[in-house]
Amino acid sequence: MSLRNVLVVLYDGMQSLDVTGPVETFAALDHFGGRSGYRIRTVSPGGTPVRTHSGLTLVPDGDPEGARPAPGTTLPVPGGRYTADFEPRLTDWLRAHGSGAERLVAVCTGALLLAAAGLLDGRRAASHRMFLDRLPAFGAEPTGERVVFDGKYVTAAGVSSGIDMGLALLGRIAGDEVAQTVQLMTEYDPRPPSDAGSPDKAPADLVARLRAVSPP
Amino acid sequence: MSLRNVLVVLYDGMQSLDVTGPVETFAALDHFGGRSGYRIRTVSPGGTPVRTHSGLTLVPDGDPEGARPAPGTTLPVPGGRYTADFEPRLTDWLRAHGSGAERLVAVCTGALLLAAAGLLDGRRAASHRMFLDRLPAFGAEPTGERVVFDGKYVTAAGVSSGIDMGLALLGRIAGDEVAQTVQLMTEYDPRPPSDAGSPDKAPADLVARLRAVSPP
Repeated sequence: MSLRNVLVVLYDGMQSLDVTGPVETFAALDHFGGRSGYRIRTVSPGGTPVRTHSGLTLVPDGDPEGARPAPGTTLPVPGGRYTADFEPRLTDWLRAHGSGAERLVAVCTGALLLAAAGLLDGRRAASHRMFLDRLPAFGAEPTGERVVFDGKYVTAAGVSSGIDMGLALLGRIAGDEVAQTVQLMTEYDPRPPSDAGSPDKAPADLVARLRAVSPP
Repeated sequence: MSLRNVLVVLYDGMQSLDVTGPVETFAALDHFGGRSGYRIRTVSPGGTPVRTHSGLTLVPDGDPEGARPAPGTTLPVPGGRYTADFEPRLTDWLRAHGSGAERLVAVCTGALLLAAAGLLDGRRAASHRMFLDRLPAFGAEPTGERVVFDGKYVTAAGVSSGIDMGLALLGRIAGDEVAQTVQLMTEYDPRPPSDAGSPDKAPADLVARLRAVSPP
């Protein structure tokens, strides 16, 4: 079970749900037959607390320089309110050490961070569908899929898709039965009030308005 | 717009997704026409950092005693790995001051915390469906629904249901169009790998096994 060693990248402005979706599914493994050995470590540039987009304050266990991804590490990379200027300490570190992880999992614009670090060159990747068109500039091949597996890279669409990604990953690693039990534990039986969760389903004027206020 | 003033209750062992689901939808309001005025404050017993079940460390802005819910406050209460002994500082504070909030929103076993504080007496409530049968002991009326509105109390089923709850609440407060736009922003277009997210859908042996390892 190689989800025991999880190293999470945190940064100011990140979306908290991008991280909690996957790690809540990973952590649920602990319920089975005692301990799975799940161990999580968080890092942020400079090792300082980060304030998420939703206003929660997360304290990292250290900084990236002190935590090179050991073999067997799963490295979740959350998205955030997209700006053209990614935190350079993070992209530099990902460029230098990211490929040392066993598996890199990005949610939402987290894929853009991986791509900006040169890690998705020539790879198929998902991202928030409103930002998919920014992937090719970094050499990645965008797809409109919810979850994409390509080698050691697992990318997912916007924000909430991290839950789907976590369960899909558990299924591959630990089998469908474990994934289903974790789905039951997290009671993932979605009931969205509308069918408006993607640009091809939401009313066109809402999509246009959202594009208009999205950062460049 | 009365989601501007959000006061989140944090505690050791809480499920991080129970909080990030709702607050990520609330925070998304900020994207519309500039600032919605969304303001969040977090508290924990003693004002000390909490370690969530999934291993993230959250720093509160203060302790409950220093943050009585002012009128207009929405108070999210997350669930956690259930134990019969709730943190008494939290239930005492909820009992004394919880009803001062404009709205209390609980996810998963957060409803049991509210109920243990005597706030759900005679009210209909949702909770994780594996723990619904514990509500009547506190005088609440359990329902198998995903999201339940009863007066100032909004309760949701297990862990991931906080996203559905957040969107349903936005729809009531700000209208369907805002809720749909937030759904698009969080790309809530769920694709669970299985249809196993509730006890009546998951394979019976998985449900039985999960019940067997659930804490008393």
